[in-house]
Amino acid sequence: MPSRMQVEIAEQPDALRRTFEALLPRVGELAALARDTRQVLFIARGSSDNAAVYGQYLCSVRAGRLATMASPSVATAYRAGLDLRGVLAVAVSQSGATEEIVATLDWARDCGARCVAVTNAPDSPLAGVADATLLTQAGTELAVPATKTYTTELAAMAVLAAALSAPGSPRGGVGHQGRDGGMGPSGSRGDGVGVEELQRVPEAVAAMLEVAPAAEALAGRLTEVETLVVSGRGFAYSTALELALKLKETCYLPAVGLSYADLVHGPIAIVDAGTPALLVAAGDGPMLPEMTRLAATLAGRGAPVYGIGGDHGFAAACRAALPGPALPEHLAPFALIVPGQLLTEALARAKGIDPDAPRGLHKVTQTDT
Amino acid sequence: MPSRMQVEIAEQPDALRRTFEALLPRVGELAALARDTRQVLFIARGSSDNAAVYGQYLCSVRAGRLATMASPSVATAYRAGLDLRGVLAVAVSQSGATEEIVATLDWARDCGARCVAVTNAPDSPLAGVADATLLTQAGTELAVPATKTYTTELAAMAVLAAALSAPGSPRGGVGHQGRDGGMGPSGSRGDGVGVEELQRVPEAVAAMLEVAPAAEALAGRLTEVETLVVSGRGFAYSTALELALKLKETCYLPAVGLSYADLVHGPIAIVDAGTPALLVAAGDGPMLPEMTRLAATLAGRGAPVYGIGGDHGFAAACRAALPGPALPEHLAPFALIVPGQLLTEALARAKGIDPDAPRGLHKVTQTDT
Repeated sequence: MPSRMQVEIAEQPDALRRTFEALLPRVGELAALARDTRQVLFIARGSSDNAAVYGQYLCSVRAGRLATMASPSVATAYRAGLDLRGVLAVAVSQSGATEEIVATLDWARDCGARCVAVTNAPDSPLAGVADATLLTQAGTELAVPATKTYTTELAAMAVLAAALSAPGSPRGGVGHQGRDGGMGPSGSRGDGVGVEELQRVPEAVAAMLEVAPAAEALAGRLTEVETLVVSGRGFAYSTALELALKLKETCYLPAVGLSYADLVHGPIAIVDAGTPALLVAAGDGPMLPEMTRLAATLAGRGAPVYGIGGDHGFAAACRAALPGPALPEHLAPFALIVPGQLLTEALARAKGIDPDAPRGLHKVTQTDT
Repeated sequence: MPSRMQVEIAEQPDALRRTFEALLPRVGELAALARDTRQVLFIARGSSDNAAVYGQYLCSVRAGRLATMASPSVATAYRAGLDLRGVLAVAVSQSGATEEIVATLDWARDCGARCVAVTNAPDSPLAGVADATLLTQAGTELAVPATKTYTTELAAMAVLAAALSAPGSPRGGVGHQGRDGGMGPSGSRGDGVGVEELQRVPEAVAAMLEVAPAAEALAGRLTEVETLVVSGRGFAYSTALELALKLKETCYLPAVGLSYADLVHGPIAIVDAGTPALLVAAGDGPMLPEMTRLAATLAGRGAPVYGIGGDHGFAAACRAALPGPALPEHLAPFALIVPGQLLTEALARAKGIDPDAPRGLHKVTQTDT
């Protein structure tokens, strides 16, 4: 019998279809709410925090808005009085009941921010403090590790970015185009997020389910591993963080999630023959050559290097690689996480852990123990 | 003969005195530069990134300014055109020569931000693109792991926060005081950073050097450890991140650095009898009771729990604890890192690694390999 986690991984294409269907009609309303704001401030923890990191790249790179992460303790423990006028505060929590997140969104409102809640729970306390709520349509999630609630949060991030890049929204900088400083050309300067391209996402996620046997085989190679480095860059950085979190909380595997840049700035020293690296890359975009070089560099240090996604060159630089989706870089995270979820589920079983109920994890997370 | 790293750890009190002496007279100039800005955006990598996390808490909690971290790849790889008017961009890099950081500050300026460079290198490329440069006075650092360049960067963060909280600076929120939502009292609502209290810092750092024998003994207990969790909350979170980085890059120890909140949201599953936890806490403030409870929770899971700082109750909840400074919570990070540096240096030697020249680390870090 499949685990609940397996069932819920497979439910993601439908959950994404339902979520886009429910949220895409909200683009105009969100654009209106955001009209007087200049930037986005995300408030989240855990898997939702990783979804927010994706939102951060999407809002910055595709919608031309400064987007950064809040530190909830600044609100909840230190009660800092900040001026948040002009800020669109976006709190992300599948349960909508994590007190710390609710309190931080409430604080942001008191400080002058416009407030959006992204949650899977209607009538949740989080929805109660927001100006607008984006309700994801994941349905009930019974396995404790978040899968479909995570990917539907990514859908909410894409809808938000679509609203911020909608015609009539203020976006773009004040002169960077005019003085490029030799940084060269780029294909993605605020190109927005289109409704049509989002329609392709559920199918691409469904195609990833075919990777299950290869993920099971890779899990077999990782059963005895004591620690692991997971890395990605740009849009796929959020996927690397989410995969590292899944491996920690579901497989009790101390997985160090690092951006490409943070890894090469010193911590690369921890990678050796006994510390495999798992690299996540989209199939196109400016990060792919760097990630391919990183795979070769780490392999040169004697590390077993495994990959998710990328292209043929990337896969060839890895000892083994799980294929990624045929989606553009800025949408690849929807599907890149799926091989990682399948790997996590298989590795938990291989280690004798029930993937549906690992120790230490609760469905509604509260920061106070 | 002591290692270079030991010598440079011991040079920190003097380096801090010189840095405060050089930078405190700049408070007025910085306050003027920041007058038309509403928020701070930090740009950094590695140890400098950890110094910036301290700056983020200090500017938010003590100076009442929204302060967040930039993602350099948004600038360097994706060349997003953002509107950064009203933003004080602060780039932190000891060498001032990391191309990614220089390019990101240059981008921020093109996007309309006011720009500050924090560096130990006069005439560096970073200083060349800034409106104002805060030059730390660490002197030449020969050991590859950053110690005195890190703590003098903390000094620059404090000077920045002092400027932002100087009389005449706009600060504080727009109504949070009026509607506190039951979050209760707090001692630190934009109380600023005072010049007098900063004068006490070098002496407190000097007192920490006495911890060396205890750090050496703790290193002896950690020689065979395969992985370690390092955690802190609030102001001390930055110290936990810096200590985790030091252990990774200098001792090749996969140390997972997590905030208290991120740890209890799932990854706590990785902590067991084979995975010690190292907790960092200031001697006062709202986080101390939480960190003491966390120590007890982790010990209850069978984990060896070690501490740095805190009070008697915190130390009693740990198997062993290195003492921390007699500084208020918002200044404690200057001194809390010193026992961690001593531990790192001793552990590297105990593992047969030259602490002055670990593999994988270079003095000027470049993101492109």
